[in-house]
Formats: sequence, C-alpha cells, structure tokens
Amino acid sequence: MKTFDVGRLAAFTDGVFAIAITLLVLDLDLPDVSGKAIGELIQADLPKFYSWLISFLALGTLWLHHHYIVAHLRCTDITILLLNLALLLFISVTPWTTSLIGAYGDQSIAVVLFSGCLGLAWLSIALIGLHAREHGLLLADAPKPEPGLMATLVTLRGTLIAVLSIGFAYVDTTWAVLVWVLLFVMHPFVYRN
Amino acid sequence: MKTFDVGRLAAFTDGVFAIAITLLVLDLDLPDVSGKAIGELIQADLPKFYSWLISFLALGTLWLHHHYIVAHLRCTDITILLLNLALLLFISVTPWTTSLIGAYGDQSIAVVLFSGCLGLAWLSIALIGLHAREHGLLLADAPKPEPGLMATLVTLRGTLIAVLSIGFAYVDTTWAVLVWVLLFVMHPFVYRN
Amino acid sequence: MKTFDVGRLAAFTDGVFAIAITLLVLDLDLPDVSGKAIGELIQADLPKFYSWLISFLALGTLWLHHHYIVAHLRCTDITILLLNLALLLFISVTPWTTSLIGAYGDQSIAVVLFSGCLGLAWLSIALIGLHAREHGLLLADAPKPEPGLMATLVTLRGTLIAVLSIGFAYVDTTWAVLVWVLLFVMHPFVYRN
Amino acid sequence: MKTFDVGRLAAFTDGVFAIAITLLVLDLDLPDVSGKAIGELIQADLPKFYSWLISFLALGTLWLHHHYIVAHLRCTDITILLLNLALLLFISVTPWTTSLIGAYGDQSIAVVLFSGCLGLAWLSIALIGLHAREHGLLLADAPKPEPGLMATLVTLRGTLIAVLSIGFAYVDTTWAVLVWVLLFVMHPFVYRN
Repeated sequence: MKTFDVGRLAAFTDGVFAIAITLLVLDLDLPDVSGKAIGELIQADLPKFYSWLISFLALGTLWLHHHYIVAHLRCTDITILLLNLALLLFISVTPWTTSLIGAYGDQSIAVVLFSGCLGLAWLSIALIGLHAREHGLLLADAPKPEPGLMATLVTLRGTLIAVLSIGFAYVDTTWAVLVWVLLFVMHPFVYRN
Repeated sequence: MKTFDVGRLAAFTDGVFAIAITLLVLDLDLPDVSGKAIGELIQADLPKFYSWLISFLALGTLWLHHHYIVAHLRCTDITILLLNLALLLFISVTPWTTSLIGAYGDQSIAVVLFSGCLGLAWLSIALIGLHAREHGLLLADAPKPEPGLMATLVTLRGTLIAVLSIGFAYVDTTWAVLVWVLLFVMHPFVYRN
Repeated sequence: MKTFDVGRLAAFTDGVFAIAITLLVLDLDLPDVSGKAIGELIQADLPKFYSWLISFLALGTLWLHHHYIVAHLRCTDITILLLNLALLLFISVTPWTTSLIGAYGDQSIAVVLFSGCLGLAWLSIALIGLHAREHGLLLADAPKPEPGLMATLVTLRGTLIAVLSIGFAYVDTTWAVLVWVLLFVMHPFVYRN
Repeated sequence: MKTFDVGRLAAFTDGVFAIAITLLVLDLDLPDVSGKAIGELIQADLPKFYSWLISFLALGTLWLHHHYIVAHLRCTDITILLLNLALLLFISVTPWTTSLIGAYGDQSIAVVLFSGCLGLAWLSIALIGLHAREHGLLLADAPKPEPGLMATLVTLRGTLIAVLSIGFAYVDTTWAVLVWVLLFVMHPFVYRN
C-alpha cells in the first residue's frame, strides 16, 4: 500500500476543493422575482456575500496549505489516505455551513458549526504533515521542520483560529467569522522564503 | 486500443467521485425559513445527516479501493473502460439513492436501491481487477493474488456487504444501512502491510 | 501556440464530462412529499430514468471516443482548442436537453434538440481527428487511417446517428431516442483490436 | 515555496473552470409545467440562452489564455498562487452574474457586475504573466515579450473589453454584453503563429 502515488490523491482532493468552492456561489439568491429592483436584491443579499467571501478565502487558504504539504510528499500510505478523506468530509460540508452563517449569522451555533468544520479540516492537514514526517514519507529536499513550539503552532494555526472563532461565537458572531480573514492575511508571511 | 493510458481513466473517475461526494451535501436542508431556530432545523435533519455520513464513507471506501486497483494497472483496454463506465453509472446515482434513504429510510425499497447500486459499483471494481489479472494488464510489481477463497472474498467484499444489507433491509432498515460502516472499518486491516 | 500540451486539454474536458454526467442525476425527482409511497414516486419517474440512462450511455460513448482521439495526439493547436471548446459547449448543455426529453419525450422538438447537440458534439470530435491528421499532430504510432468511405463513416458515425435520430423524431420519439443505444452497442466492435 | 509545481495549479483551476462553465446551464429553465408547450418555454427563455452563450464564450476565452500563460510557467510562487486564487474568485461568481444578465439584462448594474468580474479575472491573468516575466518564472523557450504598447495591450485586452462594456452598460445593455464576443473573435488572430 506504500506505492500509492501522490498525484491521484491531489487530483481527487483538487476536485472536491474546486466543486465546494464553486458551489458556494449557488447560495447567492438568483433573481426570480422580476418585479424587484436588482439593487434591493443585492442589498438584501449582503450577509450572504459576506459569508461567501469569507468561506472562499478560508477554503483557498486551506488549499494553498494542502498544496504545500502534498508537494513535499514522496508517497502516501493508508493513514494519509484516511486523514485526507476526513479532510474532504469537512471541506464538502462547507457549502452547507456557509449557507448557515449566511442565513443565521447572528446565532452562535451556526458559527460554531462553520468554524468547527474548518478547524477539523486544518487538524486533518496538520496530522497528514506530522504522520508523513514521522514515517519518512517526505521528499529528501522537503523543508526542515524547525524545532519546538513555533513549528507546531505554524502547523496547527488553522485549528487555533477555529478555537478562537468558536470562543468568539458566544460573544460576537461577526468577529467570530472575521477571524478567518486573519489566517488568510498571515499566509504570505508564513511562506515568506 | 491497448495503448490507453491509465491516467485519464483515473482523472475522469476522480472527477465523478469528487462531484458525487460533494453533491451529497446538497441534500442537507438549507435554512430558508428564517423564523425557525437553527437547533430545530438540525434536529429535523438528523436522518439526512446520518445518510450523508454513511454515503460519504461508502463512496470514500470505494474510491480508496479504485485507487488501489488502478495504481497497479499497466494499461487499460476497452473492457476495463466499459466496466469503469458501469462503475461511474452506479456512483453518479448515489446522491439520489442517498436522498432516498434520507427521506424514506424506513422503507425497504429505498435501502435496497441504495445498497444495490453500491454493490454493483463494487462488483464493477472487482471485475476490473479480475480482467486485468487474467489479461496481463497489471504492473510487474503488483501484489500477488493470494490463491483460493480468501482472495475472492477480499475482492468481492463490497458486493457481499451489499447482499447482506439488502437482506437486512426487509428486517431492520437502520441496521441495513449501518452495515456499510463495517466495510469502512475493516478497510485498514485489508491493506495492512 | 503549437507547444500546448495535451494533458491540460484532457483534464479540462474530463472535468466538464464528469460534471455533466453527474448532473444528469439531479433531474431525478427527489422525494420531497413524504406522504407519497416510494414505489409511486419511482413509477412516475420512469421516463426520467429512461432519459437519464440513455444520456449517460451517450455521454459515456462520447468520452470513450474523445479519450481514443486524444491518446493519439502529439500536441494541440488553436484550431483543436477551439473545436474542443465547441465540444464542451454541446456536452455542458446535455443535462438540460436530457431533462427536456425526460419531461417532453413525446414532442419532436425535444428529441431534435437532444440529438442535435449530441450530433454536433460528435462532429466536433470528428473534426478534431481530421484536423490532427491533416496537420501532422498525431503521434507516430497512431493507428493508420484506413482509406476510403469506411474510415469516414467510423469517424462520423455519431453525427450519422444524430441525423437518423432527428429524422425518426417526426415519426416516433421513443425510437428516435433509443437509436443512441445502437452507437453504444457497436462501440466494442469498432475498437475490436 | 518556489518548488510549487505548475501541474496542480492547473488542475485546481481547470476544476473551477469546468464546474463554472457547466453550472451556467442550470440557469436555463427546466420544464416543470407540463401544460406549457416546449416552443413557448424556449421562446420565453431566449434572453437566458443568449446570456448562457456569451458567458460560455467569455469563460472559454479566459481558459484558453490561462492555458497559454501556464504552459510557459517554469514554476509558481506564493504571489502567483494568490493571483490565481483571485482569478478563481471571479470565475466562480460568473454563474451568478450570468443569471443576473439573463433575468435583468436591461438594467445597467447587472451588466456592470458581469463585465466587472470578467475584467478583474482578465486583470488577474495579466498580473500572473507580468509577475512571472519579472521574476524569471517563465520557461526558457517562452515567447519573447514584444516591447512597448502593443504587448501591454495584448495582455490587458480582456480588462480593456470590460472597461468598454461597463461604459456601454449605461447606453445600451445589449451591446455592452455583445462586446465580449469581440474578444472571442479576435482570439485566433492574437495566437496566429
């Protein structure tokens, strides 16, 4: 089972990412009532635009990091395939949790579900990286793991953001969702060189 | 026709798997009635969550095994392409059978359709493997087929689970669906080494 | 522009094929009315099952032949890319024409639209093959074009079936649609060796 | 981060293109009212057909040009990945802006949104090309950049069409949308040799 090539894992995952990120737009209201002015329609849809954009950035950041980990894999094993399947589970549910925060953005439970699924997706990616490191599945020229606390925080930063967001959800739901933008903004700094 | 490369077979199949597994989530109710509390919505949706999760695991296990067979193919012929098309037929219908057991989970016929299609998908994969073995389409370093009953059972275990599930469907529909989890759980043991 | 690699053309086309073939199932009625027995629902849906199956076979045969042509391309040029875009146009519209014959299978115009789009898709593939042959874009070991009428008929057989189907549409719509099964059945004979 | 391979960038982008271009067809009305004649349905749908076709050509031209740029990339860096993510954002929103011009084609704001998103998508591609040129990420045999005004105009012609279309939107919305056909028609001339 060690001969599993990385290419097909990436292709299947890319497919699920591509579909999930494109399905997000289906939640934007389509103009069915022709009597309504288009300006009103868009104004009433503002919370949905907001949740669509946040979710797009969140999935985009996840894909960038998955890309980064997988580019350094030499091969996969059954553990990585199962962890990747868990990742796909949490990604494929994102269009639904996104529509939840678009319609119920002021209820804590919607934000908890949204951030919880994203957090578990990040945890799956972190575990893929950790497992690959421990079992020698990384390429020889893969970036060295910096030792200590900092490296672990970098790997788990998505999960940390999720915990932060879930905590915020019981105080202010708007900020709880906006926290995910932070992860996107700090992205270029993590992969600086 | 023997020069067909395996890569494109895998890419097309990955696409259908990725779309079917992501479409499953469309069956979860989107929050249209803003007067309803989100907790009630999710509680009423519990059978759909349950069928979504089972179906995700069932398709995920199928993909893992397809990945395993195809990784050992040297090339394809028209028989494999047609068997793979049959597989895609049964996979692409899964979002529909999943929504059937989500809404009619207590009716035997819904479970029979769900498990029947999955069973035929597993049969298609088993036949791809058998055909490739008989016609020398496997790579030289492909895992040796262990002789006898055990190897046949491993290849056809998905179809056996389907027969079991269809039998259960006339006794207890909940257990008839849960049987598919068994296949997922035994997966790591089959590909142990 | 001659350096365009074939791989990405295939990947994009596979994506559109995979989505179109999976979207076909969305036309099957989802069980919304929980009061209705599942048996009745399926019986009322029979014409839709019938059109879904025919359309799946028609798209599957098209994909097999696209696979066959593209596997022998050395590289692509702008003409092939534009012809392939025309092909994708006619494939992406198939879920809509399929739902037309599912709901209006007894009206000639529905069958004319369904068969017309498939016929133009086959014509696009035939033109890709002809252009590649004339401009030396085929691999050296590509199958020799048999001379004369027979080779042209093999290349254009999908378009011929479409013309036949459109003719039948004004006599008997059921047979006009069933004609497409003929193309699928003769497939293995065309690629015999 | 410079080791990012181009293949996966292309695969993910192809997935989003393939889904967006296929989802366009979902906007065509499906025949639900069986009492209505099919001819009337299609006639009432004419503006949607028109917007579907324009949007298909616009996305197809974008894909051709993305293909052209990426085929000459040696590798990617984080800037290209982020620019490509911006491109995907504007592509994934196209099914929604297309349904806007299908239903509200006579309102300026619908055309401004449609052309604005396409213009920003073209700008993203142009920036990918410019960044790759400046930072030496192009293959050695990539086409030399012709100096001066002409080369810049070729790279930014999609954005120019968008500005033209947005200007037209306040005069005549039909012509404002038709301007995009111009981009498709001039395509073969740009990639002549």
